[in-house]
Amino acid sequence: MKSKIECIPTEIENCPIYKLMELFQGKWSVWVLFELSKNETMRFGELRKAIPNISNTMLTATLKDLEERKLVERVQYNEIPPRVEYTATERAKELRTVFEAMSKWGNKYL
Amino acid sequence: MKSKIECIPTEIENCPIYKLMELFQGKWSVWVLFELSKNETMRFGELRKAIPNISNTMLTATLKDLEERKLVERVQYNEIPPRVEYTATERAKELRTVFEAMSKWGNKYL
Repeated sequence: MKSKIECIPTEIENCPIYKLMELFQGKWSVWVLFELSKNETMRFGELRKAIPNISNTMLTATLKDLEERKLVERVQYNEIPPRVEYTATERAKELRTVFEAMSKWGNKYL
Repeated sequence: MKSKIECIPTEIENCPIYKLMELFQGKWSVWVLFELSKNETMRFGELRKAIPNISNTMLTATLKDLEERKLVERVQYNEIPPRVEYTATERAKELRTVFEAMSKWGNKYL
């Protein structure tokens, strides 16, 4: 059972697989998406705690990148001290099917 | 419908997703696996033609890496001139499910 995958190596930049790979290149983005897909909403400090090896700088940069890619939504509440919450968007939540396929293969063979 | 994905950020090196990401980091490996999953068996020259931007050196290195990871099988025939053929192993063929999930998501959102 083969399904259509529209990827032509000469047009690498149009290939959905390549574009998704590019998104995953920075290893932290996978973890941030992963954590956010498990929890409805998370604060910066919670994300830092959930991903122990990440630095403040890297987490900030990763969240900004994911926000620009419309994978993470950032909501700031004007409280004192200001509260900022991060949520995975619908499209980010759908990445779960990709993670699941990867996880299944990886568990079997890696 | 959530399924179990065994990934703990503190134990990143045990996570099947991370390990698979690592395998995909070199962008060429994805293409080589991709081409080999479409064709039963390919010769070096055919692979080069199928992936036009790859250099001889990069293709050689990628094939060697994939061979070590048991994703590609290399068979050399003692003919003159010597013929070498590359085949995707069973586990490599099963990566298709991952490619399909990535492709589906990428086509929708990227």
